[in-house]
Amino acid sequence: MASVSVTLEKIVSLCKRRGFVYPSSEIYSGLNGVYDFGPLGALLKQNIKNAWLEQMMSFKEEVVFVDGAILGAPEVWKASGHVDNFSDPLVDCLSCKKRFRADEFKLEDGCPNCGAKTWTDVRQFKLMFQTQLGAVADENSIAYLRPETAQAIFVNFKNVISSYRVKVPFGIAQIGKAFRNEITPKQFLFRMREFEQMEMEFFCKGEEADKFFELWVARRVEFFKSIGLNSEKIRTRAHATDELAHYAKGCFDVEYNFPFGWKELEGIANRTNFDLSQHSKFAGKELAVFDEETKTSYVPHVVECSVGVDRLFLTLLFDSYYEDEVEGEPRIVLRLHPKMAPITAAILPLTNKLREQSEKVFFDLKKLGFRIQYDTSGSIGKRYRRQDEVGTPICFTFDFESLEDGCVTARNRDTLQQERVAIDQLPAYLNNLLGK
Amino acid sequence: MASVSVTLEKIVSLCKRRGFVYPSSEIYSGLNGVYDFGPLGALLKQNIKNAWLEQMMSFKEEVVFVDGAILGAPEVWKASGHVDNFSDPLVDCLSCKKRFRADEFKLEDGCPNCGAKTWTDVRQFKLMFQTQLGAVADENSIAYLRPETAQAIFVNFKNVISSYRVKVPFGIAQIGKAFRNEITPKQFLFRMREFEQMEMEFFCKGEEADKFFELWVARRVEFFKSIGLNSEKIRTRAHATDELAHYAKGCFDVEYNFPFGWKELEGIANRTNFDLSQHSKFAGKELAVFDEETKTSYVPHVVECSVGVDRLFLTLLFDSYYEDEVEGEPRIVLRLHPKMAPITAAILPLTNKLREQSEKVFFDLKKLGFRIQYDTSGSIGKRYRRQDEVGTPICFTFDFESLEDGCVTARNRDTLQQERVAIDQLPAYLNNLLGK
Repeated sequence: MASVSVTLEKIVSLCKRRGFVYPSSEIYSGLNGVYDFGPLGALLKQNIKNAWLEQMMSFKEEVVFVDGAILGAPEVWKASGHVDNFSDPLVDCLSCKKRFRADEFKLEDGCPNCGAKTWTDVRQFKLMFQTQLGAVADENSIAYLRPETAQAIFVNFKNVISSYRVKVPFGIAQIGKAFRNEITPKQFLFRMREFEQMEMEFFCKGEEADKFFELWVARRVEFFKSIGLNSEKIRTRAHATDELAHYAKGCFDVEYNFPFGWKELEGIANRTNFDLSQHSKFAGKELAVFDEETKTSYVPHVVECSVGVDRLFLTLLFDSYYEDEVEGEPRIVLRLHPKMAPITAAILPLTNKLREQSEKVFFDLKKLGFRIQYDTSGSIGKRYRRQDEVGTPICFTFDFESLEDGCVTARNRDTLQQERVAIDQLPAYLNNLLGK
Repeated sequence: MASVSVTLEKIVSLCKRRGFVYPSSEIYSGLNGVYDFGPLGALLKQNIKNAWLEQMMSFKEEVVFVDGAILGAPEVWKASGHVDNFSDPLVDCLSCKKRFRADEFKLEDGCPNCGAKTWTDVRQFKLMFQTQLGAVADENSIAYLRPETAQAIFVNFKNVISSYRVKVPFGIAQIGKAFRNEITPKQFLFRMREFEQMEMEFFCKGEEADKFFELWVARRVEFFKSIGLNSEKIRTRAHATDELAHYAKGCFDVEYNFPFGWKELEGIANRTNFDLSQHSKFAGKELAVFDEETKTSYVPHVVECSVGVDRLFLTLLFDSYYEDEVEGEPRIVLRLHPKMAPITAAILPLTNKLREQSEKVFFDLKKLGFRIQYDTSGSIGKRYRRQDEVGTPICFTFDFESLEDGCVTARNRDTLQQERVAIDQLPAYLNNLLGK
């Protein structure tokens, strides 16, 4: 089980070769910082989202879901501070004309591209994408593509409270696309212009915020372990006071040790009641709740957990990627947690003569909702490698004996051990593998 | 079971009142044609998507999934014809200055708002939302928000074929947001500016296209029945020759009898090989596949099934909405198929003294992944009404006898019948209800 130095290049290549991720609009030479997910990628993404939803539903405290729009009114983003403050410093090299983020290197060291040391002034570049709603182009027709999903939760807080039977403390969670016009999108799925977020805002009394903040940090670290991430590569890091937003009481990043260093995987923030207070002020609407015990109204505090689906997707690939040898032959293997693997099992008929009977096994499992692949092409060894490379935990080989004993040979991706399993036991076998 | 005349107003009111749908950015007075989905709406939407995915996976022919980006390069939309042709005719009343779609009424009859008969010229209004990518505003930085999800499937066709082990005939399916800058968004979720599509493109040989076209029409009609839609309110309608796009060989709409008439719910089209041929031409890339039998290359034909999640959401509400009387009291009830109902069951403790024991039943079921609501507030009858109104098929009442016999009373939304069910049998009871 030799670990190797996984690189971004190896992951990008695997993603393209095996249909995890393609550059978007690729046949027209692509769109910088925007990607499409192929068959295996779409499944892996779905598994990530399902695992997150499952955790969010597993606690005593209620977490409800909303599904907000991507297009948002400018007022929302004025109140949140994004219209005024959500920007990156931008600078152009006067010599080679290349454009850079001014906060990513020292200007006095010179241009990373040509070495020159003469620059335009640094300008603030707005990161929100803007579009125009309706048929009249004026100031009232501007809409923004949301740069985060969280605001849809805050602006709907009162709607949720008054339409759904839920009481503070409780959470509102959302999964959805967000957009940032990054000056320099980079590291593949790490920083994209179009990406997907999983955010949960937990509303509580101010005096309970610290307690829930700690609780959610622990829960979220546990989540990453539960989906198979190597715990030695995960750490939490408290933000220093000068990193904190002015309204935040505390913030922890869950970081992962990427080949390019320890980087943020998830942010968990103790946001005080800043968000609801801002919207209350800007919208002129009361966003307080009534406390039956003390007979007073208060604006709930918020603990936010925010993670990117795509960044976690990339992390899972880095974390599970190994190169080793099986019977003297090199292989690439993704040691993904079975719950995360895009394909749970492959059905491999030993020869094409067994197609009819083995296809029946395949269709029966597929109909039950299992993610199964059927592969007839090449030697069994070659087919094992193909499945190893995309992380399929189990291969079932259907051979001539299967016709006699009603069993298939189950071969394990990680232990390489083989065992005979009765065909009518396969659903139970797979459910067990998936922890169901 | 008295049917009533359901109206759009009743549905809008229910949606707001019970947390299905809110106008987006509502505390800032909303965004025309854009909506947020609240807790119950998010669950109903998820059930719709799951049912669709389940059907797509249930056939012998393989259907794989992709998850493409919303931002698209202009070249994609030039090849698809959207840049040149995707527009609506727009006209302004010279008297009251109101703006209309010129194809929705007769201009010579006068302005629907003020009655005047003098108009501006009719202009073509582009329906694609446009934004700008990167920090330089020029022609190369334009990106469009996709007006349909299908093109991501066509432009990735070759990627899917070469990275995933799949052979024609097969389908590529996708669920995702799409955007159209409608001049007059209307009828609530029926025509929105931001909406969600479920599209499947089935690739096959030209000579098999008619066969698969018929097959998919039948399958999709079957789908709508399987999720509980009243079959008398569904019909198929073949497009007349003059309705067909110039490249299409045939198109069927599955229509639903809305209060505002028979309208399209899904479009199923026999699109020839137009889509792949266009992209092949515009991108200068070969998009043909090789036929092992005849040893020739050909560009596959496409049968498309396209349905809107939000429109189907609205349809399910119209279709399941009833007002009747229970023991002399009026109630609103959504007779949703159990698989579609946002909440599968509610746990109702008879009194607050039973909180601890009944909450355990609730948490245990919730942890198993069932969508359960816990409600302690008001009389049992009032709580039944509350659940009826959002379509919860079963209420379990936990009473003092439950402490003795380990059972709860299950009350059926539709039959109103009650039966005792052992608490340890509830998971099996619910799985049975959900057809699992």
